Amino acid sequence: MNKLPTALTSPLLALDQSSTTPLYRQLYDGLRQAILDGRIVPGARLPATRALATELGVSRNTVMSAFDQLFAEGYLEGRVGDGTYVTRTLPDTLLHAGATTMSAVALQGTGRRLSRRGAMLAATPVSTSRERGQVGAFAPGIPAIDAFPFETMATLAARRWRNLSSELLGYGDPAGYRPLRDAIAAYLGAARGVRCSAEQVIIVGGSQQGLDLTARVLLDSGNVVWMEDPGYLGARGALRAAGAEVIPVPLDAEGLDVVAGNARNAAVRLVYITPSHQYPTGVTMSLTRRLALLEWATHHDAWIIEDDYDSEYRYAGRPLAALQGLDRTGRVIYLGTFSKVLCPAIRLGYLVAPPDLVDAFVAARALADRHAPTIDQAVLTDFIVEGHFARHIRRMRALYAERQAILLEAIERELSGLLDARPAEAGMHLLTWLPDGINDQLAAQRAAEYGVIAPPLSAYNLAAPLRSGVLLGYAGVKPHAIEAGVKQLAAAWAKLCG
Amino acid sequence: MNKLPTALTSPLLALDQSSTTPLYRQLYDGLRQAILDGRIVPGARLPATRALATELGVSRNTVMSAFDQLFAEGYLEGRVGDGTYVTRTLPDTLLHAGATTMSAVALQGTGRRLSRRGAMLAATPVSTSRERGQVGAFAPGIPAIDAFPFETMATLAARRWRNLSSELLGYGDPAGYRPLRDAIAAYLGAARGVRCSAEQVIIVGGSQQGLDLTARVLLDSGNVVWMEDPGYLGARGALRAAGAEVIPVPLDAEGLDVVAGNARNAAVRLVYITPSHQYPTGVTMSLTRRLALLEWATHHDAWIIEDDYDSEYRYAGRPLAALQGLDRTGRVIYLGTFSKVLCPAIRLGYLVAPPDLVDAFVAARALADRHAPTIDQAVLTDFIVEGHFARHIRRMRALYAERQAILLEAIERELSGLLDARPAEAGMHLLTWLPDGINDQLAAQRAAEYGVIAPPLSAYNLAAPLRSGVLLGYAGVKPHAIEAGVKQLAAAWAKLCG
Repeated sequence: MNKLPTALTSPLLALDQSSTTPLYRQLYDGLRQAILDGRIVPGARLPATRALATELGVSRNTVMSAFDQLFAEGYLEGRVGDGTYVTRTLPDTLLHAGATTMSAVALQGTGRRLSRRGAMLAATPVSTSRERGQVGAFAPGIPAIDAFPFETMATLAARRWRNLSSELLGYGDPAGYRPLRDAIAAYLGAARGVRCSAEQVIIVGGSQQGLDLTARVLLDSGNVVWMEDPGYLGARGALRAAGAEVIPVPLDAEGLDVVAGNARNAAVRLVYITPSHQYPTGVTMSLTRRLALLEWATHHDAWIIEDDYDSEYRYAGRPLAALQGLDRTGRVIYLGTFSKVLCPAIRLGYLVAPPDLVDAFVAARALADRHAPTIDQAVLTDFIVEGHFARHIRRMRALYAERQAILLEAIERELSGLLDARPAEAGMHLLTWLPDGINDQLAAQRAAEYGVIAPPLSAYNLAAPLRSGVLLGYAGVKPHAIEAGVKQLAAAWAKLCG
Repeated sequence: MNKLPTALTSPLLALDQSSTTPLYRQLYDGLRQAILDGRIVPGARLPATRALATELGVSRNTVMSAFDQLFAEGYLEGRVGDGTYVTRTLPDTLLHAGATTMSAVALQGTGRRLSRRGAMLAATPVSTSRERGQVGAFAPGIPAIDAFPFETMATLAARRWRNLSSELLGYGDPAGYRPLRDAIAAYLGAARGVRCSAEQVIIVGGSQQGLDLTARVLLDSGNVVWMEDPGYLGARGALRAAGAEVIPVPLDAEGLDVVAGNARNAAVRLVYITPSHQYPTGVTMSLTRRLALLEWATHHDAWIIEDDYDSEYRYAGRPLAALQGLDRTGRVIYLGTFSKVLCPAIRLGYLVAPPDLVDAFVAARALADRHAPTIDQAVLTDFIVEGHFARHIRRMRALYAERQAILLEAIERELSGLLDARPAEAGMHLLTWLPDGINDQLAAQRAAEYGVIAPPLSAYNLAAPLRSGVLLGYAGVKPHAIEAGVKQLAAAWAKLCG
């Protein structure tokens, strides 16, 4: 019977009286670790609790609590009177694993089996990483967080938490909180000409989840998808993650070029478009083109995702009604988000599915993550129903128009001849053009060195870009920051063209 | 030049002065619909705005606004002075589609192409539907919503909304809000013996999303997965939705029977277990079995999901530390949720990934839905860091122990001889046994007829169940409702045997 070598008690002596971790827990951890590391071998006899307590300068209860836990977990065995032993039946493999703890380095080499999808995901540059945490001049897609209705949200949230009916705290409908679905259906009908019932509206965690659910329901690995080129990176990522083959289709003045796409690959299951305000070019798809695409999709048994991500913000002309409103054959999955109208952090959006696809989408949502947080949905419902939403959109529309004008003036003043910027009728960013021969990736890099975000157009291209340009988001940037940002760009690009 | 038949103006006359929809919009909709339905043919000349205004009894501005919109959208063409015409270039297909609107019935027949996964999803009984909206006696898995800290959450939420830093409103880290990840890593280390750094903690939208992300990263279609039988339906659904072949593995007194599983199918990629408190049987996996499973998984290059869904609630004995803490080879993906500790509606949980899998999981989350709502994460962080979380768990532990005792007494009083119920050391429900020969599905159905939820054990089984039993959730049921529920069961089952 090998007695516990006193040398081995030294690590156990390392009890930290000042730690927030209770002493018995520290002792338990120390003993357990010593057993698992093989520093105390199976069958070893432990000192009597009283002796160990004295040795460690702790109460006997402390030692007994630690022992109890180790007994409960099967590390120790023994009978009262006969002393306490380390369990003899612990598998060797574990004990000889030693004190090694996991590290990415240690594991990386071992070529561990991810799924094909997992391996692809591990290699995917996360589509949000570029935007993550980016605020200030000139991050695209970020609303005016400085003008966010904090106080209103605080009041609405507190009111909901204080007057919550029980069923709102249980599991909810995967399709979403019904009053929110009603409010969205009404809004879309009136403001966007979307034809749908509330049953067709499914609440999602932003348009990214809308894309993911659509890919799950409609795509199998290897299916072909048309995407506008240049186009939205988040969509490309989600579609590729679903195993789709993404075919870039060029744009013309009327939007996605159906004829060109048809020439490249007509065996298409899904077409992703942003017809109201193409991302990132801002082209509005013409009515004739919309009708042509719908006709084509119906004829080729293909689906259409209409991503209507920022249609709320139009400063000139009249917004075209949604393409979904023209759809007679149930080909269109319509996506909208509150990320641009309110803020990305809220993670709420909606998907309008053709009636016969609703059940599949609801099942996909339920199995993906059950449903969106109910309180968030309830608070947003109040925000819409009580008129804050419409008011906020009006305020932002005026604010963004003003900020776009400030940006245009600053560019005219500081960057004339270097950057070609035209007023945009809609949206939250400008697509500006660099002189021919200037590499937009290089320009973006220089800008970044001067602390300015100016994503290069080519980053949104799958095929070779036709022209060199950068995106400048203005919606989320305060006037003085717009001025400062443009000055920085001028400095950054001073030596850009020899 | 065919003039617009006056007969056709009648539908346009149907303007509702009392409607909240502006008159110009009603007129726009009416004309647009008439054009799309082919009731007004391409090339048809529309009446002059003044004449139409008079005919409709509206202001000329109203008519002009409607026309402007239709011009903008390309439905109308013409020059000032030369009158207004319906665009000649509208494709016939659309125009002859007539006024048909989509309906599920109309589309269902057409055998539309979903993906294989989509078709399977459409046929999947949604795992949440059984629980959805279920509260009261004896819905399992529902915490004591009546004891929820509404006031605290209201205060914390309002405080966060009022003092929000800008970057919290932009796009966040897909892995989650860092302070929350820190708080969870600390909690898991101290309370569950989980060995992880905050970098390994990924915030998910409840354990369902944790399962879904794990399936994406680690499973390809057709891969074999072991699951405890009986087991958690939500897990089975998520794993099957990922295309996995789910192999039921029987349980014994020590938990999942590794030897039996190995005999059935050893070519396994993933093993799903609930070792702390097996769902729904309540078995705790022994230390020896845990070590054996880890050794087996390492040897067979398989992954393990440890779903630690309700380990906070233990009333007798000591909780075993998490299996993840024994893992030396990075085989375990550890899942936890706040659905049981707080409420399902909050939709927040966590996943602890082996260090070398973190990037893949983060990418999967980013492409699935970017990240969890930031405010919710911040509020929960405050709830934990300020001590409300630990206090709430202590309160609930006492409350649930009391409710379990009340349920056991009531069963003893009302159902002795009919229902065999033993005290459970942990969890939120009792698994109670019916006399041999009594079909638990039938018993559950009778109970439902009396307004009582008593899910049959066989519903959780893949293989044939060994014994007939029902689950009775008590955590979310108030004492008087427990008493009443048991009386109802007695009435419902009076004629069940004999």
